Amino acid sequence: MNITINAPRLLRSIQELGHIGENENGGVDRSLASEADFEAREWLKAFWRNNMKLEARTDPAANLWLTWENGQTLRPLVIGSHHDAVPDGGKYDGALGVLMASEIMKTLMEYEVVLRHPLTVVSFTGEEPSPYNVSTLGSKILCGRLDSGAVRSIRHRESGEPLSAGLARLGGDASKLDDARLKPGFCAAFLECHIEQGRRLETAGISTAAVSCITGIYREKIFVHGQANHAGTTCMCDRSDALLGASELALGLESIAGKYDDIVATCGYARVLPNEASIIPGEVQMIIDVRTCHPARLKQFLAEFGTLSEQTALKRGLKIERSTILDQAPVPMDSVVQSAVQAGCRTVGEPSVLLESMAGHDAANMARLTRSGMLFVQSVGGKSHCRQEYTRPEDIEKAGNAMLAAVLELDRRLD
Amino acid sequence: MNITINAPRLLRSIQELGHIGENENGGVDRSLASEADFEAREWLKAFWRNNMKLEARTDPAANLWLTWENGQTLRPLVIGSHHDAVPDGGKYDGALGVLMASEIMKTLMEYEVVLRHPLTVVSFTGEEPSPYNVSTLGSKILCGRLDSGAVRSIRHRESGEPLSAGLARLGGDASKLDDARLKPGFCAAFLECHIEQGRRLETAGISTAAVSCITGIYREKIFVHGQANHAGTTCMCDRSDALLGASELALGLESIAGKYDDIVATCGYARVLPNEASIIPGEVQMIIDVRTCHPARLKQFLAEFGTLSEQTALKRGLKIERSTILDQAPVPMDSVVQSAVQAGCRTVGEPSVLLESMAGHDAANMARLTRSGMLFVQSVGGKSHCRQEYTRPEDIEKAGNAMLAAVLELDRRLD
Repeated sequence: MNITINAPRLLRSIQELGHIGENENGGVDRSLASEADFEAREWLKAFWRNNMKLEARTDPAANLWLTWENGQTLRPLVIGSHHDAVPDGGKYDGALGVLMASEIMKTLMEYEVVLRHPLTVVSFTGEEPSPYNVSTLGSKILCGRLDSGAVRSIRHRESGEPLSAGLARLGGDASKLDDARLKPGFCAAFLECHIEQGRRLETAGISTAAVSCITGIYREKIFVHGQANHAGTTCMCDRSDALLGASELALGLESIAGKYDDIVATCGYARVLPNEASIIPGEVQMIIDVRTCHPARLKQFLAEFGTLSEQTALKRGLKIERSTILDQAPVPMDSVVQSAVQAGCRTVGEPSVLLESMAGHDAANMARLTRSGMLFVQSVGGKSHCRQEYTRPEDIEKAGNAMLAAVLELDRRLD
Repeated sequence: MNITINAPRLLRSIQELGHIGENENGGVDRSLASEADFEAREWLKAFWRNNMKLEARTDPAANLWLTWENGQTLRPLVIGSHHDAVPDGGKYDGALGVLMASEIMKTLMEYEVVLRHPLTVVSFTGEEPSPYNVSTLGSKILCGRLDSGAVRSIRHRESGEPLSAGLARLGGDASKLDDARLKPGFCAAFLECHIEQGRRLETAGISTAAVSCITGIYREKIFVHGQANHAGTTCMCDRSDALLGASELALGLESIAGKYDDIVATCGYARVLPNEASIIPGEVQMIIDVRTCHPARLKQFLAEFGTLSEQTALKRGLKIERSTILDQAPVPMDSVVQSAVQAGCRTVGEPSVLLESMAGHDAANMARLTRSGMLFVQSVGGKSHCRQEYTRPEDIEKAGNAMLAAVLELDRRLD
């Protein structure tokens, strides 16, 4: 039996959901607990009701769940992603995954294919960075990385509103968050489709591919202490210029990363003190972000960076203090889910490539609870988290059919 | 006749004035129009009244003038500096020059040496950078670089107080500022003693030296435009990282300056956007400051820096916009005053070295009105604009006697 998704229907739903929170520039403003977040949920629930004749369930973390079951005794297969967006973001990041999961459920219903497992679509709460300073919120609560005590202390960084009030607006209940926590093995597997947000698929001319691992993220805060001094009267040879030291660290970070094909490294934050044109910088505070799926390579990388830092301090008469502020381990995707996705990609004529995800995703939290996997769809120009974000209809269709094939394969293989 | 200053008396006066505005850390807080500025003026007027039996005059710009005349027909010789200080500054920057000028007048009175010229001591208003965002205020008004209209628009950057109100507190009168303006040739010469604020005298083991030129100051605002992007999903080779471009400019600035022994160059200000750990910097705003007494060398320097900037933009896919925000020409010191100071230095056993001043001074404004010159005294460790600022008693004594000899020489040579 050759069943395929209804691509035009899926594309229409992407456009419809994409209008919720759309701003005058064509970007999408739909961050956690915003009016647009609420509207998107109402739209999704109506969309599911109209198309699948099923009612969504909202858990205490405000995650939305839609389950199609026919008395099966196996645990469900869960598919989905998130519907929130960064400020002035795109229509595809997250929304594509939720709507593709919905399309797969609808397609199976239309073809009257009853799976061995119940099928569940999920849309997670607050996956993106938001003014509440927490990301992958819904899946963190599900897997126990964030408990009700921690959530109680979170507030909106501008309005000061407690996150619990935001969750209540969305139909959640912060007083019952610990009930939202799921037991490992609650489902048979989790699969998420997401845009790549990079250029590797585009460069390789591939529409869709399986994800092998979600990157580890390592962050350091670095203080470069020099000597603030007069920009005129201090000879070049008498200076301990903190900004020049920081510049060498930033460039060194790049050049060391260039030696590792599986590491990206960035200095995204730097603050100069006193930051006056006529004063040699006395201090620079910076944050570096290093990402890799390979802990042993991170260790090598940091050893090289440490040497550079010591040499820079010595050469320039600076004191350089480094402290780790985040050391999140990489999360390998489940091998059975990976191979099902690879098989699915082959059914749509794609090579069975494996990609590492260099961004975090809900699938990393779900890996604490179940066999978890992802497939990526090509992002034009690698653009994401911006209104220029775009994924071509033909790539979406291929990814949808590859994911459908993967779901059928997982349904056959897993008990 | 061998006359010398009374060094212990001079040192005592430096300590006394140094207590006005002294904070709990031993630094001096005495910025323009502060309570301590007012107190220092009251102290100075009383000090002059008690020691020289002369009354000070306050001009509309609140500059303080003390003239000792005996019916001479020649124009006066003017000596002095300023009594204000940067926040948490030292006891010597400015104050030393005013008190040394006072000591020279007192010494001449004691020795009953009547000069051919009247002798005038001046203490200028607001030489240092201050919350009113203007420096060398008093001498700028005297020489016409700042007129009453410009002063009317100046306000305290925190309190919003008009500068005119600050001047009124100090005994000035902003409505009569244009009357404070002096005609070129109003005096025979101006001579200012100041601490070096650098390490060249200390390195050479010299107490005091004549200044040949006050540096030009050139400033550029530079915008480095890159592409803000995801710090994880963007391959190292696909980045246009504005901070890395800015880092190359800052380091290049240093390395080009290293080729010129008569240029210092600094990037003291840099602002990164959006300045988030997880986002590749999309833009950096920076200000560079380049100082030299040699305009032709500045031109060469900027040509080299321009080439570097273009190469950096090309290599990294950045757009780099440069705009000049200050281009202040160097001010050569008058040759007669220079040679009188050099001769004075020789009388105290110092080699007759010439130093360029890499900081701005009131003497640069006075050069628009008269033969203007300076002598520098050694700064221990080159430290200035900080509470650690220090100049040794023996160096102060030598400088005082060198300056006294220079004043006598100018009195003989000039009409």
